[in-house]
Amino acid sequence: VREIGEFGLIEAIAEALPDAVRCGPALRLGVGDDAAVFDVPVGESLVVTTDAMVDGIHFRTDWIDWRSLGHKLLAVNLSDLAAMGASPVGATVTLALTGSERVADLRELYAGLGELAARHGVAIAGGDVVRSPNAMVLDLAAFGSVDPARMLTRGGARPGDAIVVSGILGASAAGMALLEAEGSAAMTAEALIAAHLRPEPRVALGRMLFEHGVTAAMDLSDGLLGDLPKLLGRSGVSGEIERDRIPVAAAVRALFPARWFDLAIGGGEDYELLMTVPPDQFEALALNAANVGSTLTTIGRIVPGDAGALSIVEADRSRRRIDRGAWDHFG
Amino acid sequence: VREIGEFGLIEAIAEALPDAVRCGPALRLGVGDDAAVFDVPVGESLVVTTDAMVDGIHFRTDWIDWRSLGHKLLAVNLSDLAAMGASPVGATVTLALTGSERVADLRELYAGLGELAARHGVAIAGGDVVRSPNAMVLDLAAFGSVDPARMLTRGGARPGDAIVVSGILGASAAGMALLEAEGSAAMTAEALIAAHLRPEPRVALGRMLFEHGVTAAMDLSDGLLGDLPKLLGRSGVSGEIERDRIPVAAAVRALFPARWFDLAIGGGEDYELLMTVPPDQFEALALNAANVGSTLTTIGRIVPGDAGALSIVEADRSRRRIDRGAWDHFG
Repeated sequence: VREIGEFGLIEAIAEALPDAVRCGPALRLGVGDDAAVFDVPVGESLVVTTDAMVDGIHFRTDWIDWRSLGHKLLAVNLSDLAAMGASPVGATVTLALTGSERVADLRELYAGLGELAARHGVAIAGGDVVRSPNAMVLDLAAFGSVDPARMLTRGGARPGDAIVVSGILGASAAGMALLEAEGSAAMTAEALIAAHLRPEPRVALGRMLFEHGVTAAMDLSDGLLGDLPKLLGRSGVSGEIERDRIPVAAAVRALFPARWFDLAIGGGEDYELLMTVPPDQFEALALNAANVGSTLTTIGRIVPGDAGALSIVEADRSRRRIDRGAWDHFG
Repeated sequence: VREIGEFGLIEAIAEALPDAVRCGPALRLGVGDDAAVFDVPVGESLVVTTDAMVDGIHFRTDWIDWRSLGHKLLAVNLSDLAAMGASPVGATVTLALTGSERVADLRELYAGLGELAARHGVAIAGGDVVRSPNAMVLDLAAFGSVDPARMLTRGGARPGDAIVVSGILGASAAGMALLEAEGSAAMTAEALIAAHLRPEPRVALGRMLFEHGVTAAMDLSDGLLGDLPKLLGRSGVSGEIERDRIPVAAAVRALFPARWFDLAIGGGEDYELLMTVPPDQFEALALNAANVGSTLTTIGRIVPGDAGALSIVEADRSRRRIDRGAWDHFG
């Protein structure tokens, strides 16, 4: 940042964005005025989310390249929009910089952000660059639109619904574990590391859930055991999941023979979608999910009971109740 | 923050918000889901802005009380919406916390934020709380709506337009100077300090500018000499302002006999509106501005010339060109 004064920095970095991202169809007014102006489709509501990432806490610049960091900053927010069934529209970015960052790296950050934004029709409409000598903090606010009659909340799960997840769980956590261990460079390891560095927000999947009968949805950022109780709580129901049904990559099982299940249910940062759906609608939903590249797996069911209560059905069919935050005590 | 785990913290703090702010008329879905959902009035566009504040850079907690800090975090963003002629609708808040903050202080922050939000019909729709051990960073994204045919940009100033500011300039900078000097506790000093700690965003003023012929507008956050050239540049015109016409509080002149003019034109954080308007429309505009509590002053005029060029007309009618960023060299 020393290379360019604070004035003009955002413009210099923003040049790394693809043109499509600087002037998306909904963007009336972008970088350079007091605020950005967007159009929201008639009849749709505005959906807003924000997620911040702190250097040393949420990422380490010796583990993640700047381009992946930009991708991830936007991906974690688009994942929230996906979980609402919303179409992403735009985003603003706040960079709190220590002053020792290199402009070339910040341009890489924006390039990674811009690539993902272009794929999802998201316009990056400026933001704020501030000085923060003691910590680099990246914050992004993403907004999208959804027909309010078709939006997906966490609150609609009903007893009898299947509990379903997209994709595989634990790959991101396994990737982080490999980075921590400076692990193998095998292809399988690289795929897991990529899952951690460059998660794919399930935007197209999110948009089709409502019409296929999904009753509640959220994205998996804190791990299944952290997130599922929130959905159960908001819906006022209980849930049970089966150990043998949790989708886990073979590579995760092979590389982490002792830890794979903990990584899958507690590791976090999967950015897959967790949803509930009446069982008779699952097959059509899964078929259509496959068309947008997502595999769906039924991992359990909604049952009547205390709001937020979760049980695991073990391989021997024994059940145990999971207390929120208590998973560390299990083997 | 140690008093409450990260889970539940945002809910605990959010209790300090007035009810009206947690469920504003436009808010369909607030804190507790993957994202917040708002309605934007039919026919209006979405206006989005974000401004961050870093502990030790933008504020010092030994100078500002937490309630004022919350007020200011929202005020600086509403000021940007005001400059677009937009009506504020909602905001999301990101708190990057070191962990040594007290929950009671964070609740005060939210109380100050909530008071201002309630006055302007802004719903606070959650946000993100993250750990940032080395620096507290507060970021807010505010959004509003405006009829796109009536929005105000920085780009419409035309030669012949009067250059106009609301309120008085330099009060905030003088207030900060008094805080730095641990200055007088006289009433006048307190008013200046309040101008610094609790600026009033000119939302009602911003919303009436378009219908009174204002051609360009922006808010004054970096000081007149920092901001006016941006408006001139975006409009492709030059401007000249007259030293004797800059509105400065008598208290600022009295307390800072050597520095008052520098504070007024270079001090920043005024959060007044800067606008251009055909001279024959100024009187009606000023009359209506008075109805919403704002005094308007013509301080100069738009002239043909290099885009962004600014001159000052001195008391002896001599002109000098101001080079951007070069004001420090003047007496």
